[in-house]
Amino acid sequence: MDKPYVIGIDMGGTNTAFGVVDRRGEILFRSSISTLGYTKGEDYVNDLGNAINDLIEKNNLREGIKGIGMGAPDGNMNDGTIENATNISWAKGVVVPLAAMVTEKTGFPCKLTNDANAAALGEMAYGAAKGLKDFIVITLGTGVGSGIVANGQLVVGHDGFAGELGHVRVIRENGRACGCGRSGCLEAYTSATGVARTAREYLEMQPERESFLRNIQHRPLTSKDVYEAAKAGDSLAIDVFNFTGKILGEALSDFIAFSSPKVFILFGGLANSGNFLLDPLKKAMDEHVLFLYKGKTEVVISKLNDSEAAILGASALAWE
Amino acid sequence: MDKPYVIGIDMGGTNTAFGVVDRRGEILFRSSISTLGYTKGEDYVNDLGNAINDLIEKNNLREGIKGIGMGAPDGNMNDGTIENATNISWAKGVVVPLAAMVTEKTGFPCKLTNDANAAALGEMAYGAAKGLKDFIVITLGTGVGSGIVANGQLVVGHDGFAGELGHVRVIRENGRACGCGRSGCLEAYTSATGVARTAREYLEMQPERESFLRNIQHRPLTSKDVYEAAKAGDSLAIDVFNFTGKILGEALSDFIAFSSPKVFILFGGLANSGNFLLDPLKKAMDEHVLFLYKGKTEVVISKLNDSEAAILGASALAWE
Repeated sequence: MDKPYVIGIDMGGTNTAFGVVDRRGEILFRSSISTLGYTKGEDYVNDLGNAINDLIEKNNLREGIKGIGMGAPDGNMNDGTIENATNISWAKGVVVPLAAMVTEKTGFPCKLTNDANAAALGEMAYGAAKGLKDFIVITLGTGVGSGIVANGQLVVGHDGFAGELGHVRVIRENGRACGCGRSGCLEAYTSATGVARTAREYLEMQPERESFLRNIQHRPLTSKDVYEAAKAGDSLAIDVFNFTGKILGEALSDFIAFSSPKVFILFGGLANSGNFLLDPLKKAMDEHVLFLYKGKTEVVISKLNDSEAAILGASALAWE
Repeated sequence: MDKPYVIGIDMGGTNTAFGVVDRRGEILFRSSISTLGYTKGEDYVNDLGNAINDLIEKNNLREGIKGIGMGAPDGNMNDGTIENATNISWAKGVVVPLAAMVTEKTGFPCKLTNDANAAALGEMAYGAAKGLKDFIVITLGTGVGSGIVANGQLVVGHDGFAGELGHVRVIRENGRACGCGRSGCLEAYTSATGVARTAREYLEMQPERESFLRNIQHRPLTSKDVYEAAKAGDSLAIDVFNFTGKILGEALSDFIAFSSPKVFILFGGLANSGNFLLDPLKKAMDEHVLFLYKGKTEVVISKLNDSEAAILGASALAWE
């Protein structure tokens, strides 16, 4: 008999949330533990496994669980490890067989991939990509990630690490420094941090220009501030989105030449900026895309609930 | 009983070559017709079909043929059409159901894709990509094309036109005009025509610099001239390859972030420039690739015989 439930685990740098999910994408039960405060991976998995086992026993679900899917930073789908995850203290510079450790502790088969790939699987199982075989999810958060689906399958590459579109270099000369150690990467411009950085640059380079954003002095500017200012009609903030959308739209036009996706699904905090981002993005994408592809690829914003999407995405791995 | 032979058709702008191929990639019989001189697709397919039928009847092969694979400019694998093929007089601005027409005329099932995708399938069936699930073929000819394989399948996209990596824009500001109507495309720099153009620019911009290439006055410079000059130690010609290799290497480092291929296979006239192109290419790729991928992806030159590869590649479609 096919088991009716899977478990999705969303491992973030701060918090690890997990839930029991049914085939329609309903999260029936959920819980979380902190990701912080561990010096050894074994201790983290021990606590995580105990919390999962507790949730399952409490709800008498052990017989109904098909398996576990896990989204984790730098997760490798090919072998279930996390490799050199720089935001996890016990995973820096080493390869940790996380999926195998979770299986050992819980007794369930566990598959693992990175957050953006999990998001793509979530969109395919429960979201905007239902029934689609060719699409790309772009995650716009602190960083920029991507999950690419071609021929109905996640593109993972020979090493399990395909789909780092945030690190395609969009500005080759004098580009911004990126967290990856190189410069000019898409992520340096179109992440939430990139948007805040653009705003700071605009404020500094155009000292005469009025902007609500100048009132924020007591703390660092965020992309949310820029969004709020744009909503209030602040022209400098709107220009920041125009610049961001243009860079992202040109990048997407190049990505189309690669896998010709039916749709790009934007996901994550910055995607909620709506038309401030979408309008200039679509304009730049249409302007720069090769004639063969013109007008064929849509750009939509994920409709999956932010607080649920990561768990849902991870859980989708376990149905595969 | 599984039939032992397939037919591969390589439809070029000038000539259409075809052959009967066995499972090991041997071309047993071959022939060709001119592609030129037709004003209607029906007439072309009629002559092509007659030539194929002749070859088959003469060698008494009808019962042994599994099907036909065809490589054609702007070929769409999803529906077997060629769409707006600008180099074929009867296919400009229209969609021609070429595969169906060939089937009707010959009685064999026919699949069709573009030349670069056919090359990728040929490498997988008989060449450097045997056994590989993730690789990219880059064709360096008059234009730059690509065939992308991920998870063991050709990436064709929702519309059948994925994999136009020659039209990824590598220079966003003041890039060279490209035949596609845009500017800064990879093809404008790293095709055979792009190399000749770089050489002309170098000769013009550095009027004091000595070069064998200055002796070629009676006809347009070609990439082969640049190669011959480089072999003879001409430093300007060597610099042309350094420039070309650098641009291609940087582009490949971005392509790795997409599908993380195990290998890039370079194919076509310019690929025969060997280390003049490969050395600067590999250096730039290694320098610019994201740390995750460093040292993991090889670049090799196709070993398929130039005069056979296009027929072999097309024929591989018919085994699928």
